[in-house]
Amino acid sequence: MTGRTRGRPRGGVATDTREQILTAARTAFAEKGFDGASLRAIASAAEVDASLIRHYFGDKAGLLVATLQLPVNPLELIMPMLAEGPNGLGARILTTFVTTWDAHREVFSGLIRTTVATADRGAPALSLVRGVLLPTLAQVIGGQDAQLRASLLMSQVFGMATVRYVLKIEPLASASIEDVVALYAPGMQAIITPAKHKLS
Amino acid sequence: MTGRTRGRPRGGVATDTREQILTAARTAFAEKGFDGASLRAIASAAEVDASLIRHYFGDKAGLLVATLQLPVNPLELIMPMLAEGPNGLGARILTTFVTTWDAHREVFSGLIRTTVATADRGAPALSLVRGVLLPTLAQVIGGQDAQLRASLLMSQVFGMATVRYVLKIEPLASASIEDVVALYAPGMQAIITPAKHKLS
Repeated sequence: MTGRTRGRPRGGVATDTREQILTAARTAFAEKGFDGASLRAIASAAEVDASLIRHYFGDKAGLLVATLQLPVNPLELIMPMLAEGPNGLGARILTTFVTTWDAHREVFSGLIRTTVATADRGAPALSLVRGVLLPTLAQVIGGQDAQLRASLLMSQVFGMATVRYVLKIEPLASASIEDVVALYAPGMQAIITPAKHKLS
Repeated sequence: MTGRTRGRPRGGVATDTREQILTAARTAFAEKGFDGASLRAIASAAEVDASLIRHYFGDKAGLLVATLQLPVNPLELIMPMLAEGPNGLGARILTTFVTTWDAHREVFSGLIRTTVATADRGAPALSLVRGVLLPTLAQVIGGQDAQLRASLLMSQVFGMATVRYVLKIEPLASASIEDVVALYAPGMQAIITPAKHKLS
């Protein structure tokens, strides 16, 4: 939005450098996607050393998350849930997700609206989904059509979030977290562990 | 968008009157919602007799659908499916829905984007959902929390549609209709006929 113009520096040189990196990263992710963007090229565009990016943001996924300016780091939420495996994963994802985002409704609503509006122009949240979340999710749920099932699972979560936070359709918009999880998680679990893949 | 200004009439007096009614209806639905808008008030704003609205559009739901300018009338698609009752409804909704909208991807993508962008300002598609689709769906699926389950079912369909047509996330964006139905409909059916409500 601001391109290369920077306002008055508020936090001195470090803040300024950090913003330079984030600006270059937003452009790179939008133009080349998560896989296509390289830390080296982003460092070059921001006129800093690549080691400084690692110092501030860890890895490329961490840098991408930072460009989204979210109140909560989605990777820190999701990775521990996935690590527990596919059993009960639907309810775990939904409980954590709704609890976290209910507390930040306006931010999240804005993120969804921006992502839908800029989907054709490389919305950064989509880079995170395509480059990090979906591949990890597909690996955890495994089995036949894991990639497609991961994208369908994401559809369920995205749809619930949009109807609850953006479209605000009742009774979902005001329903308790417990009711949403009780009624919606079984359908998610049906994709995570479909009947024909079940061991039992 | 155009308010009361009308371009050069292209189809003579009838087309002009029809457009006058649709313009008044869009304003009324946006300001008062489906339930709050009355055919009488719309007729008055359009300076026509209410019987003319019934002649052109049937009833209020028909008028609302006409304001959306869709290539397919969603009520004509959905009502026969609902009439067959809740058994297998998930697969019927999904098959009909994806088959129809795959043929009109661009129109549908535009409708979703507009609805998300104007959700706070009375998006007309939301009037259709709130005023017609959800109440009918809740009545058909019945049982405990029918309204909430109907809004969660709508979340699933909306999420799938947005990821397939707007966000275009693979592999869902290019998956066959058969694969989408086989993997996604069971989760919809889990909301339509939850385990604890099943008769068997």
